[in-house]
Amino acid sequence: MRIEILCTGDEVLTGKITNTNFSYISQKLEDVGLSVVWGTTVGDDRERLLEAFRLAAGRADAVIVNGGLGPTVDDLSQEIAAAAAGVPLVLNADWLAKMENFFARRSRVMPPNNRKQAMLPEGAEVLDNPIGTACGFALDIGTARFFFTPGVPRELRRMLEEQIVPRLLARSGSPTTIVLKRFHSYGIGESHADSLLEGIEALAPDGSVKLGFRAHYPQLETKLTVRGTDPEDVQRKLAPVAGEVRRRLGNFILAEDDRTLEGVVLAALLDQGASLAVVETFTAGQIAARIGHLPGAERAFRRSLVLRDLTDLGAAVGLEDGPALGALSPETAEAVARAARAQAGATHALAVLIELDEGADAIDFGGTIHLAIATANRVATRRARILGGREWVRLGAVELGLDCLRRFLQNLPVTERIDFERA
Amino acid sequence: MRIEILCTGDEVLTGKITNTNFSYISQKLEDVGLSVVWGTTVGDDRERLLEAFRLAAGRADAVIVNGGLGPTVDDLSQEIAAAAAGVPLVLNADWLAKMENFFARRSRVMPPNNRKQAMLPEGAEVLDNPIGTACGFALDIGTARFFFTPGVPRELRRMLEEQIVPRLLARSGSPTTIVLKRFHSYGIGESHADSLLEGIEALAPDGSVKLGFRAHYPQLETKLTVRGTDPEDVQRKLAPVAGEVRRRLGNFILAEDDRTLEGVVLAALLDQGASLAVVETFTAGQIAARIGHLPGAERAFRRSLVLRDLTDLGAAVGLEDGPALGALSPETAEAVARAARAQAGATHALAVLIELDEGADAIDFGGTIHLAIATANRVATRRARILGGREWVRLGAVELGLDCLRRFLQNLPVTERIDFERA
Repeated sequence: MRIEILCTGDEVLTGKITNTNFSYISQKLEDVGLSVVWGTTVGDDRERLLEAFRLAAGRADAVIVNGGLGPTVDDLSQEIAAAAAGVPLVLNADWLAKMENFFARRSRVMPPNNRKQAMLPEGAEVLDNPIGTACGFALDIGTARFFFTPGVPRELRRMLEEQIVPRLLARSGSPTTIVLKRFHSYGIGESHADSLLEGIEALAPDGSVKLGFRAHYPQLETKLTVRGTDPEDVQRKLAPVAGEVRRRLGNFILAEDDRTLEGVVLAALLDQGASLAVVETFTAGQIAARIGHLPGAERAFRRSLVLRDLTDLGAAVGLEDGPALGALSPETAEAVARAARAQAGATHALAVLIELDEGADAIDFGGTIHLAIATANRVATRRARILGGREWVRLGAVELGLDCLRRFLQNLPVTERIDFERA
Repeated sequence: MRIEILCTGDEVLTGKITNTNFSYISQKLEDVGLSVVWGTTVGDDRERLLEAFRLAAGRADAVIVNGGLGPTVDDLSQEIAAAAAGVPLVLNADWLAKMENFFARRSRVMPPNNRKQAMLPEGAEVLDNPIGTACGFALDIGTARFFFTPGVPRELRRMLEEQIVPRLLARSGSPTTIVLKRFHSYGIGESHADSLLEGIEALAPDGSVKLGFRAHYPQLETKLTVRGTDPEDVQRKLAPVAGEVRRRLGNFILAEDDRTLEGVVLAALLDQGASLAVVETFTAGQIAARIGHLPGAERAFRRSLVLRDLTDLGAAVGLEDGPALGALSPETAEAVARAARAQAGATHALAVLIELDEGADAIDFGGTIHLAIATANRVATRRARILGGREWVRLGAVELGLDCLRRFLQNLPVTERIDFERA
C-alpha cells in the first residue's frame, strides 16, 4: 500500500514550527509495518492545496492530510477536499451538537465561526476527535482514501492510533495484530547493536518479526515489530526474539517500552526505600533535572549540589579531613559521594565530577568523568573519557551517571566498557 | 520567485529523524524575504526521486535539494540530478583533490567509495562545503535552478548561508542587503506583542521593514526583516523601528540577536565581578543547567542546591534561626536566598521555591512560585502563579527565575506582571 503524508499550513511551510507531526505519523506507521512513500508540505493556499490533493490522489492508495481543520478562514482542508472530490460541503448535525456540548461543558457559548468545523464533504466518514473540536474525516478522492487529521499534536496522535491505523491495516490486508516491542540501551552504538543482534529475526517464523533501531544520543532504541493473527500469536512469536535481545544486549538494556532511565532509577530507589543525594560539576544540574521533578521524586530525591569550582567542593559537602580535591580521581569522587550522602542523610549518593579539556570547543574537545556511588557500606567508582565537544561530553556524563546508578541499584557492574568512551 | 524544498532520504521519510533541516531552510529564506511555496520528502528511491525532481522542475524557479550527497550506494542525488537534466556524470578533479587533502590532513587515506562524491552532473556549478566531503552543486533542470545540499545540518547551514542565499537573492532581483534583527523577550505572548507593535512597520519607508514573530514558550522572538541597498541603508531604515521596538517592549526584552537570557545573566555577573548561588525545588536543577555549564561560568557560578523536600530546606542552607519554612512565601524565599548566599560565599543568590498543586497532571494543574534574589544589602522578591501542567509550570519557573535575576542585575523591576501568570 502506497501511503502519502500531506502537511498543510503556513506555520509549517515557513518553518515557524518544526514539523514533528510528519515524523510522528511516519514512525507510527512504520511501527505497524506500513510505509510512507511520499511527503508533501504546502501552505494555506487554495490553488496549491488542490494541486497537492490531485497529485496525491493520482499516485497513492492512502493519504494522511494533517492540519487545516480549525475554525479560522485560513483553515481550508474541508473546502478543498470537497472541491477535489467534486462533492458539496454539508453540515454534520451530530458534530455540531458535539461541539456545542464541548463548549457548554466548559460553561462557554460556541463562537459562530466554529460551526465551520462541522461542515464536511458529502459522503465523508467521521473520524472521532474526543479531545478537540476539529472533526477528522475520511473521504475517497480519485482512487485514494484520504484521512484528514487535526494539526494539534495530541489530537492527531490519538486520532491516528485509534481511528486511522486500524483502518489502514484493514485496507492493507495485514494481520490484525501488530505489536511494537522496544528496548532502550545506553553504551552501545547502532552498528554495534546491529552486529550483536545479527540473525535474530530468524528466531521467529515467516518474517513475522522485524528489527529496527532509532538512535538518539546517548541512548539507542532497539525495536521489534511483530505481526500475528491475535495478541497470543504475537506474544508467542515475540517471546524467543525478545529473550534473545535481552540476552545479547544484557546489562546495556536500561528500560523497555514506555519506561525511561530516570523512571527506572526512581522506581528502584522507591522500591528499596532508598533516598538519593547527587553532586554534579560540569553537568551543572542536568542529572538532578532528569529525576528530581518526577512524580514521587519528592519521596526519594533528597538533595543535589552543583559546583563548578572544584576547590570549593570539599567544604561544600562538609568534607574536612578527606583527601585533597585538587586532582580529580575516582577516589576523590568516592570521598565526595560518601560525604554528600552523610550530609544529606540519604541512603545513596552519586557524585559525577568532570575535568574538562583546556581550550575552545571543537569536535575533539573532551572531558574526563570521575564518578562514584556510595551507600553506608558499599561503594562503586568509574572513570571514563568522552570526546565530541562540550555539549556531547555533558550529555554523555549525564547519561553515564544515571546509568551507573541504575546498574548499582540493580547489582550490575558499573564499569562495563561503553562504545562512546576513549581509552 | 517560487522556491521549493526537496528533502531526500529514508531516515527522514520514515520519521527516524525529525526533519529540522526543512524548517531551518524555510526560516532562513523567510528571514531574507524569500518564500518557500512547496515542500517534498521522498526516500532513497530512484524512481520517486526522479519524479520529485521532474515535478519540482515544472513548477518552481528554484529548488533546494537536501541530502543524498554521501559516499554510500543509497546516496543518489548526483545520479538522479544528471538523469533529470539529461547530462552525464563527470569527475570533478578539483573536488577529488580537495577530498584527498581533507583525509590527508586527518592522517587517513581516502576510502575508494568517497570518489563518488566528486562525480557531478556535467555543467554543474560547485557550491563549496568547507567542513565536509559532500560537494554541493547547482544545476538547471528544466527552467528551474536546483541547489544540492548535504544532509549534515552544520554543513547544510553553512552552505545555505554562504553559497545559496546570495545566489537566490541575486536571482530574485532583491536589493543586495537584507538584515534580520531579532529581539528575545519573556513575559508577553505573541498576540500581545503584535498589538503592542501595531503600525511599527510604517516607521520605515516603502515597506522595507517587515515584522514577524516566533514563539517558543516561554520566550518570544520578535523579528524585523530589513531590506536596503547596502548595509548603511539597512541600518538607516532599521534604526527608528528597532528603537521603537525597544521602547514598546521595554523591560521585557531580555536579549537581542544571538545572545541568550542565560548568556546575558552570566555576562552581567562577570561584568559586575559578582558570583551566584542558586536554590531550586521543583525546577530540580534546570536553572543551574541553563547557566552553570557555559564557558566562563566557572568564574561566577558558585553553587546550586536542589531540594524537593522543603522541610529539609532550612538545614540545607544552614538556616538555623530563620522563619519556619513550613508555609512558603516570598519571605521564606528571601530567608533562603540570604542564607544560601552566605553559605556559598557568593555576592548574589537566587532562590526559586515552588508549591505544586495537589493531584494528577492536567492542563489546569498549576504551581505557585516564590522567588527571591539577595545580595549583601539588597533583596527583591516575587510571587507568581502559573497553570498549564507540571512541565509548563517547570519551564515557566526556570524562565521566571532567570529573567528576574537578569532584571535585578540590570536594575529593572522584578515584579512587572507577565502574561503567563494568574492573579
